[in-house]
Amino acid sequence: MAQSTPIYDDSTFFKNYLDLPRQQHGLDGAPEWPILRSMVGPVQGDKVLDLGCGLGWFSRWAVDNGARHVDALDVSRNMIEKAKEMTPTGMQSTTINYQVKDLEEGLSLEAASYNVIYSSLTFHYLETTTFTRLLGLFHAALKPGGRLVFSVEHPIYTAPTCDTFISVDLPSGQKEESIWPLNRYGYEGLRQTRWLGGHIRKHHRTLTTHVQGLLDAGFVISGVREYMASEEDLAKEPRWKGALERPIFLLIKADKSKSI
Amino acid sequence: MAQSTPIYDDSTFFKNYLDLPRQQHGLDGAPEWPILRSMVGPVQGDKVLDLGCGLGWFSRWAVDNGARHVDALDVSRNMIEKAKEMTPTGMQSTTINYQVKDLEEGLSLEAASYNVIYSSLTFHYLETTTFTRLLGLFHAALKPGGRLVFSVEHPIYTAPTCDTFISVDLPSGQKEESIWPLNRYGYEGLRQTRWLGGHIRKHHRTLTTHVQGLLDAGFVISGVREYMASEEDLAKEPRWKGALERPIFLLIKADKSKSI
Repeated sequence: MAQSTPIYDDSTFFKNYLDLPRQQHGLDGAPEWPILRSMVGPVQGDKVLDLGCGLGWFSRWAVDNGARHVDALDVSRNMIEKAKEMTPTGMQSTTINYQVKDLEEGLSLEAASYNVIYSSLTFHYLETTTFTRLLGLFHAALKPGGRLVFSVEHPIYTAPTCDTFISVDLPSGQKEESIWPLNRYGYEGLRQTRWLGGHIRKHHRTLTTHVQGLLDAGFVISGVREYMASEEDLAKEPRWKGALERPIFLLIKADKSKSI
Repeated sequence: MAQSTPIYDDSTFFKNYLDLPRQQHGLDGAPEWPILRSMVGPVQGDKVLDLGCGLGWFSRWAVDNGARHVDALDVSRNMIEKAKEMTPTGMQSTTINYQVKDLEEGLSLEAASYNVIYSSLTFHYLETTTFTRLLGLFHAALKPGGRLVFSVEHPIYTAPTCDTFISVDLPSGQKEESIWPLNRYGYEGLRQTRWLGGHIRKHHRTLTTHVQGLLDAGFVISGVREYMASEEDLAKEPRWKGALERPIFLLIKADKSKSI
């Protein structure tokens, strides 16, 4: 079973999770969403797969924007139940197929059936062997010309022993308040941390592993972006200033060639 | 004039530079070379452009491996003179055209004329506007199916205020000896540091800017690698262990489509 299951189905953690701005306000509460939206592009008539759909915000956005069908998967039963509650009845039965599904346990997808495969902040919970295997599966499951768009915690964010900013007196004598204590970048694998009062297990992978995995699976890389807080983001949420000191999110768009 | 000129033409700095393993031992002294070599691939019959050629190690490797012609450019007169000295007379007059050239000052290249454009650890000396403009020029100067292969100092390496490892007592109470004090990642631009007894001016750019610049210029990304020290590298050079704590080099291969 995926290691992220217990935590998302823990009631205290889940309550804290629901209080996050991106759960309260949906996609507009996620500062990286405008980049992802531009990577996804128009979805009119598309068949969409949403992996780690959470409360279903993206799935409903896709339907609102003309997607023909969405398969929305999440490992957490809590999450899927809540997503169903939040989905208008007509929309759910006709176009969004919510399913509790553990990506670590094997997923089978019909070949050349999706226009869009989307995943927000989910893949860093997967072991690298699973991640790499899934990329091959996604490539096969996309129609020619289809796209995979996903975000993960940035490798700079997942790497270090200590994942909080620290205040440091630099050798120069200068005092810096927001130093990200980077280490262990080249050592891929399990990282354990605390978040929202729960114990989190995630997997650190380098940029190299992400990009080479996509290329090896046959994808064409068409976007690699790091979320950087804009002036407008900072006016709304001063806490995103940290993203300018070290990136938090890595966003990737990868296409299946039209000529395959 | 490029800001790196004075430093490479400073006699003390240049003497120290010549003592570096990668200058003493050529390509085999550079641990990232095997990755770059695999990105470059066979060069038999190719016309090659080597930007920031330094002592000409790569240019001579290309000729030794069957390249038809190499244009080898460097901003430093010292470097070009030394490169010429190190080049067998026959090779130089027939196949390697060494030129002192400042990439910041405008470069003109014949359209669709090169099979390979190569650059090792040079582009981080260029301002981003120059770098971006050059990518367009390189795309135009490559033959269809040609490739651009380059290395730069990794954005993680160029970003911070302090570019040395520090020892830190983490909030957990754990003491870590090799913390890379990352900050300022999102703030692109000039960085000044000291290296080999000289003052160095270089330009920090995010991963996003590198990759999007290539995509915007029309390139197909076919390799993105971070040098990570192997067991074998560490046996030869224990000091490369630092590269596992935070990457030093970013290596990219970008292709011009065959169908253009």
